[in-house]
Amino acid sequence: MLSRPRGTRDMLPEEMEQRREIEARLRAKARTWGYREISTPTFEELELFTIRSGEGIIDEMYVFEDKGGRSLALRPELTAPVLRTFVNEGRSLTKPIKWNYFGDCYRYERPQKGRYRQFWQFGIELIGADSAMADAEVMMVADDLLRTTGVTFVMKIGHLSFMRTLLRDLPAADQKKVRAFLDKRDTEAASVFLTEIGRNDLAHPLQQLISARTLDEVFAVIGEIPEADRIRETFGILDSQGIQYEINPAIARGLDYYTGIVFECFAEGLGAENQILGGGAYRLAHLFGGEDTPSVGFAMGFDRVMVALGENIWMPFQPHVIVIFTPNARDRALEVARELRGSGILCSIDLMGRGFSAQMKNAGKNADYVIIIGDDEVKTGLATLKNMKGGDQQTLPLTDVISSLTTH
Amino acid sequence: MLSRPRGTRDMLPEEMEQRREIEARLRAKARTWGYREISTPTFEELELFTIRSGEGIIDEMYVFEDKGGRSLALRPELTAPVLRTFVNEGRSLTKPIKWNYFGDCYRYERPQKGRYRQFWQFGIELIGADSAMADAEVMMVADDLLRTTGVTFVMKIGHLSFMRTLLRDLPAADQKKVRAFLDKRDTEAASVFLTEIGRNDLAHPLQQLISARTLDEVFAVIGEIPEADRIRETFGILDSQGIQYEINPAIARGLDYYTGIVFECFAEGLGAENQILGGGAYRLAHLFGGEDTPSVGFAMGFDRVMVALGENIWMPFQPHVIVIFTPNARDRALEVARELRGSGILCSIDLMGRGFSAQMKNAGKNADYVIIIGDDEVKTGLATLKNMKGGDQQTLPLTDVISSLTTH
Repeated sequence: MLSRPRGTRDMLPEEMEQRREIEARLRAKARTWGYREISTPTFEELELFTIRSGEGIIDEMYVFEDKGGRSLALRPELTAPVLRTFVNEGRSLTKPIKWNYFGDCYRYERPQKGRYRQFWQFGIELIGADSAMADAEVMMVADDLLRTTGVTFVMKIGHLSFMRTLLRDLPAADQKKVRAFLDKRDTEAASVFLTEIGRNDLAHPLQQLISARTLDEVFAVIGEIPEADRIRETFGILDSQGIQYEINPAIARGLDYYTGIVFECFAEGLGAENQILGGGAYRLAHLFGGEDTPSVGFAMGFDRVMVALGENIWMPFQPHVIVIFTPNARDRALEVARELRGSGILCSIDLMGRGFSAQMKNAGKNADYVIIIGDDEVKTGLATLKNMKGGDQQTLPLTDVISSLTTH
Repeated sequence: MLSRPRGTRDMLPEEMEQRREIEARLRAKARTWGYREISTPTFEELELFTIRSGEGIIDEMYVFEDKGGRSLALRPELTAPVLRTFVNEGRSLTKPIKWNYFGDCYRYERPQKGRYRQFWQFGIELIGADSAMADAEVMMVADDLLRTTGVTFVMKIGHLSFMRTLLRDLPAADQKKVRAFLDKRDTEAASVFLTEIGRNDLAHPLQQLISARTLDEVFAVIGEIPEADRIRETFGILDSQGIQYEINPAIARGLDYYTGIVFECFAEGLGAENQILGGGAYRLAHLFGGEDTPSVGFAMGFDRVMVALGENIWMPFQPHVIVIFTPNARDRALEVARELRGSGILCSIDLMGRGFSAQMKNAGKNADYVIIIGDDEVKTGLATLKNMKGGDQQTLPLTDVISSLTTH
């Protein structure tokens, strides 16, 4: 028997309908903030991703060639494609540009529990704005989008200048190593590393900085820095709007292209794989051949959000109606079904050549309501509506049947 | 400058919103017929597609390997993946199974005008029903879905038994060649081929059959066949529901797995590439290791439908509102923006650090409405709404502002 490739998923209707519901909520909510959707190809030139993430990412991607012999990669993330689109198409648009995206991404790895080779991200990018309001807005959008899904989460916010200031005397490569340890939440390893390179003097301030939970505590460790006013303004905006967050200078994001504010959101009840959103301020456009442009954005791990939501997704009730008919009433039954569908009602009719009583038996298992179209109903033009849960039955004009089915 | 791979597209918000509108209409409409959405991976094992379409398809697909050395292919179509899902997951589900899908597919070829390497299909599969009602329903769904997009089209219906009966004396390979010519709408080449293989006697009946536009004309050429009653019943159902179609025995579909009714829809104004939908009755599950199961389905070329629709897509008007504020009114302005967004209104606020008059100037270019939050509005708790098209301006409670913006 053929089966799906390892590490991939088939999604059946119940799951898909929940995903489409959450996807629609995210898109509608992002749009109210002015972030409108764009779409980019599933594959890009390999170089786009190595420029953003380094050569190391090649081993984590599906790579293949096009007819012209160019190396292509299935996208592992969407920020680089969206910024590439900005470089190609967005220069004539009014800034700031506000875009949202929802798409599937791919990682080439051995399958693990809960980690799939095809996964989905929803995100936004704000391109061409560089202000406390811009930074705050993107975090407020993150907060609003996660709330609209119904997930319970904590937002942790850091700023790259915190750690950069503390580590400014270290060679760039060593700074990067410390940030990489922090990105893996391994502060112990970061301290050990500092001792190894003979900078034991930084180990204690590093611990203090990581433990800081207010801006005053942060600046007590690293001193006042040029970015301090902007950072205070950013947090002031969040506070004025009642946004819940935690300051956490250990939030460092792994990649070099971040430039300022960085933030991550964590869901309750997901265990170790509980990060559901990550973002920050960055500069990427100039690396793709565009003008150097400040940007802020985030990506949400849609699949993890769906796991975190579990069964807690409110779905509108849509009754399943089956129209059953006597042999001579088939054409009228089809008309009735069409009228119901025209009003948005989910309505099916026998396709298996069943007789009247077999249709009724099947409907007893699969329908919320049955509409009976027999010889009498053909004569009168009425329809008999039977509630399969309550059992009551009424013969009514079709318009009344439809209004009773659409006013739940 | 980096650019997107040849033969692919970036889609900006105006295009994406139109596509999402049509996609949503298709999905909602399919659901009213009881066809609910499933999703399958973007890539499948190569074998799945060679079983369905023959080895020739390998050259038309993007093929690569997974970590286990298996050959994978980006899907060129969705019927095989959906039937593979049925074989893997669907055996315990109540039959008939009714599924819809919307997904991107890939073809590995030199780019041509209007033919992209990544393209989208919307389709349905009805699995496990084998009746005139089943055949008719799938064609009625095709008709209803195309109508809901607004596209103008013609549906042409054939049946494989027509051509098979006429050509029954030919070797299978020769029958296939004739069908392939017909599939390319090249009836002339089909006649020439028949002459070449010494079956000139079939050339005239072939022309007669291709020209037949009623069942009586068809059966006058090929005689009464065992399927005749079922075919008459199928068309009788379509007629009873007022479905517009044309009988066309030249509709042969290229692939071997079709078993009965076949149909194609063509849009006006698309030139040579005007086929926007194709489908029919087929058997595929047993080739994938499942039970031999009758199926009927179709796939719609979503991109071609969008091209055919052009500008003729009704989109709900959603005004763009910009909240502008004096320096001391920032926090109140953010609150006002949040209230508006909570009511679904697309609302933005300055992120560029502009002063009040620069905000107003920008809004003059980009907003339908402006809401002014100045020092007075902070004191009174009111908001000033200005229509940027009409120019009139009113200071109102925020709830009145919201209701006037949401009752278009």
